[in-house]
Amino acid sequence: MNVVGVDVGATKIAAGVISPEGKVLGSARYPTAKTPEKLLSGIVRAVSDARDGFAVEGVCVAVPGLLLSQDSMVVYSPNLHAIEGIRLKDELEPKIKLPLTIENDNSAAAWGEFRFGAGRGTNHLVFVGLGTGIGGGIVIHGQLLRGAQGAGGELGHVTIQAAGPRCACGNRGCLEAFASGTAIGRRAREVAGERPNSVLGRLAAEREVLGEDVTRLAREGDEVALAVLKEVGRWLGIGLAGFVNVFNPEVVVVGGGAMGDGELMLESAREEIQVRARPPGRDLVEVKEATLGPDSGVIGAAALAKDHSGAYLL
Amino acid sequence: MNVVGVDVGATKIAAGVISPEGKVLGSARYPTAKTPEKLLSGIVRAVSDARDGFAVEGVCVAVPGLLLSQDSMVVYSPNLHAIEGIRLKDELEPKIKLPLTIENDNSAAAWGEFRFGAGRGTNHLVFVGLGTGIGGGIVIHGQLLRGAQGAGGELGHVTIQAAGPRCACGNRGCLEAFASGTAIGRRAREVAGERPNSVLGRLAAEREVLGEDVTRLAREGDEVALAVLKEVGRWLGIGLAGFVNVFNPEVVVVGGGAMGDGELMLESAREEIQVRARPPGRDLVEVKEATLGPDSGVIGAAALAKDHSGAYLL
Repeated sequence: MNVVGVDVGATKIAAGVISPEGKVLGSARYPTAKTPEKLLSGIVRAVSDARDGFAVEGVCVAVPGLLLSQDSMVVYSPNLHAIEGIRLKDELEPKIKLPLTIENDNSAAAWGEFRFGAGRGTNHLVFVGLGTGIGGGIVIHGQLLRGAQGAGGELGHVTIQAAGPRCACGNRGCLEAFASGTAIGRRAREVAGERPNSVLGRLAAEREVLGEDVTRLAREGDEVALAVLKEVGRWLGIGLAGFVNVFNPEVVVVGGGAMGDGELMLESAREEIQVRARPPGRDLVEVKEATLGPDSGVIGAAALAKDHSGAYLL
Repeated sequence: MNVVGVDVGATKIAAGVISPEGKVLGSARYPTAKTPEKLLSGIVRAVSDARDGFAVEGVCVAVPGLLLSQDSMVVYSPNLHAIEGIRLKDELEPKIKLPLTIENDNSAAAWGEFRFGAGRGTNHLVFVGLGTGIGGGIVIHGQLLRGAQGAGGELGHVTIQAAGPRCACGNRGCLEAFASGTAIGRRAREVAGERPNSVLGRLAAEREVLGEDVTRLAREGDEVALAVLKEVGRWLGIGLAGFVNVFNPEVVVVGGGAMGDGELMLESAREEIQVRARPPGRDLVEVKEATLGPDSGVIGAAALAKDHSGAYLL
């Protein structure tokens, strides 16, 4: 039977009907409203539109931010404050009238890659999502690692340089401060200042350089942009090496919107893992790009939908 | 029924008969031999002596180093090379003639604290063992995290300062390079050089200052030694904060021989966690000293003993 996966992002709500094989059968997409009431009604409407004409058995809504599983409540969501503090299951289930599960969006993306994407066939996977920030999801011994409250998997917020740059979380030197899309943009602006005659430098004279500019220029073969992505890839690798030592995963899957020219960053990340991670884990692990692309959130969420007894439906 | 736990260390092999309540009923201890043959016969003899007169159902041997679970083989053990490359289960089980399990020593210590020590009653525990190096063990959703090959849980080898001091693993800036007993000694020697008239400074003029000197002097109230432990505690906290974000544990248990004056280091570690870890996990987590003390390895190993069907005996 089919289920509905919902991916609530800072700018859009995507809902999809997903088949037992992980295929998207139908979908709907709306902009994310910024008040709690409109946000909730947007989710209900997206589910309703997506499921139109399909028989479905359950819904999972993947949400950004730090989750308290027990209350199905996001306690902190830097880019979507409207979702904070709402008992999402209590609010949504009576309206959607299907068994409803709430999960963290990066956990859902991890689970999607595990079930239907780059981690298919493995039992131990670490997912790192590079976007404005860095999120993570961990599947270990075939199970999603949620931790005591459902707030585990925050792989972007491990310190890799104690006195490093300030992170959005308020801390210093987090992996997110070195390898997120935001960090790529910051590093590019520094490099633009150092090299005013480079393409990046000339762009910076016109407007603020962003992470996506670096990705675009790197794709066009610009040497300076390529060097920025390689450097960021090394920082990413420093974080990933620690995860390899801690989790001994079969595969590390890297996805997210900031993975523009993924292979380039992953190449230098892999080199750093070879230096910093230990055998036998470093010899086993494969570092791969996510394969579910923009549908990963919806597919992952769907794969975590449960029936009333708590059993997975897919 | 009782089981036998064996803790194989770099200097001693300890075996204990453990009751279903986690009590040590009988024990034996031998120095660790440095050849593979004598090491194996020492384990067999320790088990035989310990179980004398007790009815026991199974044995678990906890070993130091990176384990390949599938082969029951340690692939790398910096302080006990004699154990590397031996198929331990194949070699030991025919001689011990009881169902035999091989586990990593820090995983066993973690499991011991989880079942019978500072983590009793929780479902999510991170154990960090401070000794010559730093080892780790993770219990998540009530299960030991082993990873794909049994080599997971290497919490000492996450980078917390990318260009930091060289670690015994060959990498730079690992948590182990900042917060192990070895790191305490190194930092104390630096401080002794900076402050030649301090007690540490005068001691350094006579002989090499070691981590245990710092612990002893700190207990006697020496300000300089106290400051070294506080500083090391902050580095420890930087690592622990990352683990709180990643695992969302109920408790972090810190043990091991280098935890001389534990509370002092843990106090500054807790402060760092409050700065660096995120809600709700940082508000939930308790950071505690291990309570099983020198028996933790034996008790933890025993608690991981299995019968022939693979079920835990305790």
